[in-house]
Amino acid sequence: MALKKKPVTGMRDILPDEMVLRDYVQDVIKKTYRSFGFTPIETPCMEDIENLSSKQGGENEKLIFKVLKRGEKLDLENAKDEIDVVDMGLRYDLTLPLSRYYSNHANELNQPFKALQIGNVWRADRPQRGRYRQFVQCDIDIFGEASNIAEIELINATTTCLSRLSFKNFEIKINERRLLKAMAKYAGFKEENYDDVFIILDKMDKIGLDGVREDLIACEFDVAAVDKYLDLFKKIEESGDGLDYLLKTLDEEASDPINSLKEIIGAVNKIKNDDFKIVFDPTLVRGMGYYTGTIFEIALPEFGGACGGGGRYDKMVGNFTGSDVPACGFSIGFERIILLLTESGFKIPGAPKKICFMVDKKYPVEKLSDVMNEANKLREAGETVLVVKMNKNKKFQKEQLEASGYTEFKEFFAD
Amino acid sequence: MALKKKPVTGMRDILPDEMVLRDYVQDVIKKTYRSFGFTPIETPCMEDIENLSSKQGGENEKLIFKVLKRGEKLDLENAKDEIDVVDMGLRYDLTLPLSRYYSNHANELNQPFKALQIGNVWRADRPQRGRYRQFVQCDIDIFGEASNIAEIELINATTTCLSRLSFKNFEIKINERRLLKAMAKYAGFKEENYDDVFIILDKMDKIGLDGVREDLIACEFDVAAVDKYLDLFKKIEESGDGLDYLLKTLDEEASDPINSLKEIIGAVNKIKNDDFKIVFDPTLVRGMGYYTGTIFEIALPEFGGACGGGGRYDKMVGNFTGSDVPACGFSIGFERIILLLTESGFKIPGAPKKICFMVDKKYPVEKLSDVMNEANKLREAGETVLVVKMNKNKKFQKEQLEASGYTEFKEFFAD
Repeated sequence: MALKKKPVTGMRDILPDEMVLRDYVQDVIKKTYRSFGFTPIETPCMEDIENLSSKQGGENEKLIFKVLKRGEKLDLENAKDEIDVVDMGLRYDLTLPLSRYYSNHANELNQPFKALQIGNVWRADRPQRGRYRQFVQCDIDIFGEASNIAEIELINATTTCLSRLSFKNFEIKINERRLLKAMAKYAGFKEENYDDVFIILDKMDKIGLDGVREDLIACEFDVAAVDKYLDLFKKIEESGDGLDYLLKTLDEEASDPINSLKEIIGAVNKIKNDDFKIVFDPTLVRGMGYYTGTIFEIALPEFGGACGGGGRYDKMVGNFTGSDVPACGFSIGFERIILLLTESGFKIPGAPKKICFMVDKKYPVEKLSDVMNEANKLREAGETVLVVKMNKNKKFQKEQLEASGYTEFKEFFAD
Repeated sequence: MALKKKPVTGMRDILPDEMVLRDYVQDVIKKTYRSFGFTPIETPCMEDIENLSSKQGGENEKLIFKVLKRGEKLDLENAKDEIDVVDMGLRYDLTLPLSRYYSNHANELNQPFKALQIGNVWRADRPQRGRYRQFVQCDIDIFGEASNIAEIELINATTTCLSRLSFKNFEIKINERRLLKAMAKYAGFKEENYDDVFIILDKMDKIGLDGVREDLIACEFDVAAVDKYLDLFKKIEESGDGLDYLLKTLDEEASDPINSLKEIIGAVNKIKNDDFKIVFDPTLVRGMGYYTGTIFEIALPEFGGACGGGGRYDKMVGNFTGSDVPACGFSIGFERIILLLTESGFKIPGAPKKICFMVDKKYPVEKLSDVMNEANKLREAGETVLVVKMNKNKKFQKEQLEASGYTEFKEFFAD
């Protein structure tokens, strides 16, 4: 029986042109982040199934590709549940593995530890256009830095990356989990309901103030609380400087997160280039339950959605070691960046000249070495030289090569 | 309960210093291969379980990490066998996925198609020192080129890579599966026994002629055939030019592979640099059953073993499409190269200067942007600048940073 030619469901083969772009983007990201003192690290693609199912990953934990036990450990006959037959899974993100890595190696790492990770992650999501079950994430994280110098450097580094990749007019939206909570408290919501309130608030950019009000009331929240809450967002909007308004309005305990946001925004505005702006967004929520402080997101108006984000998660290492370590990270949406660059017809700057040496079929093998020595000299000088046998249909062969960027051709015939 | 800090059994975390070396080596390999006209491609890390179990992978098929079916497709209760509960597996090499890829996309690819792949593969091998269950393979392959210009370019490209990575005195061993068979036929072995004979022959470098004789006779092969076979190896050794000797001695049908080997060796010798030599090795077997013609291996005397190899496998694409396509590949033993470079104390040439800006705890946040703007200028110029808060124990902090290559320090204090 013939083997299957298609990749497995929901995953894809990457063709040469896209791969060249992906390699270029990864190079820019790596070079930029490394110039900021982030050091590359790597963890295995698989993690212990217990770590992956520890409620750190929220909804992603439902999407894990699980790996069958092997050898004697596999007892299919007596297996009642999935957990009886699997011992590992493919990672759904890079943050949980990084926290495990840091917990395992803290003594061998510089403090603070600035990590750079680029790697595949897997989620058994329902296949849909432009979303795949294997995709690249690209994260920087700082462990052991409690002050907001971490946030400032993460934003500085990531925006520098995006500028170098020719992005313009993007926006960094920023908020604080502690501020989100203070606002909910001020309105009168109960602490156990905060997460449900935030899930609805998160839809503000899609359904607007009225839509959020409707949804909150549909969930049977106290109407007075809902109205006080939404009024807060209106006042922020009208006030001109939302953070100043909140500082005057909310409890004393909100001043810490507010001042931190003011410091970060102030510093970034004095560092920043003209390609982006940084704005306080009181409706920014970010899905992952593990965030404990600052949260941020990259918005690209041309794209109409986030293409990266991150935040502070000071409690995750504690799940491994029993004692918390400050942690803050920023993840670039690599696949979306590739999509955007492809759609905008982005051309890789400084690509080497591509030359093709076409060797006639009857060219004697004894003289091939001359052709290749000539090719090697050009390659040594940084150019790309393809040595191929001339096909019967030379014209078509050349057209195909021109389409892949070959601009010079030299033909070799037997005398 | 605390989460597990260790990576899963048999896999490992990669620390920053090694990761910097791995990135450097990958860059050199990619840049070199691309200058030869190989185009990077990528396939998903998972393949259909039927493809992986199709007897292309020999012993590796016993080592597959299998992925559990999901949702309604998983019926644990009625499962009798592994195959009932899994639908995919992690790839054990890059050659089978590449053949699937080529079969799936041949119309969209240049002909001949020169592919470059660097990626992880997984094998559930017994854990042992220096061998891991996840490791990087680094392959180049040429599809659609039947002539030995393919072999010559593969060897030219790979040896150029190794030279650029500072390897000296290495050896390319070369042989031909068709010649191996002709020699076995000449000795009088039956065709159905060839593979068993070759498995023993493969041990020649460890157990010598006498050991091979003993093992062949222990397998109850005809003593006359065994002696005629081993005599052939002695004569090759004594003859000075083994290929000439075999050309005179063996059947007419052996002349094709012999002449091809002579052409390849002749061409490579005229191209080659002084870092390596290419030698005909009549005892070279290479394990994989899919090889159909030329086979080769990189031997490093300092390492005492192969650190890469490859060959021609003209029948694999046919398993997907029904019609064969010539194919030839060369795989570099990436993990062994990293091990050797690490052990030899290899220093990465041209690494950027590493500078650390240490900011006193009391330094005002409003002025952080000045520090970062100064850092950004140096980063723009290609240098690495780490901005960190000064720790209480500044001396230890500096020592640690010096150990990671930081050579310049600048301190920032509040006035």
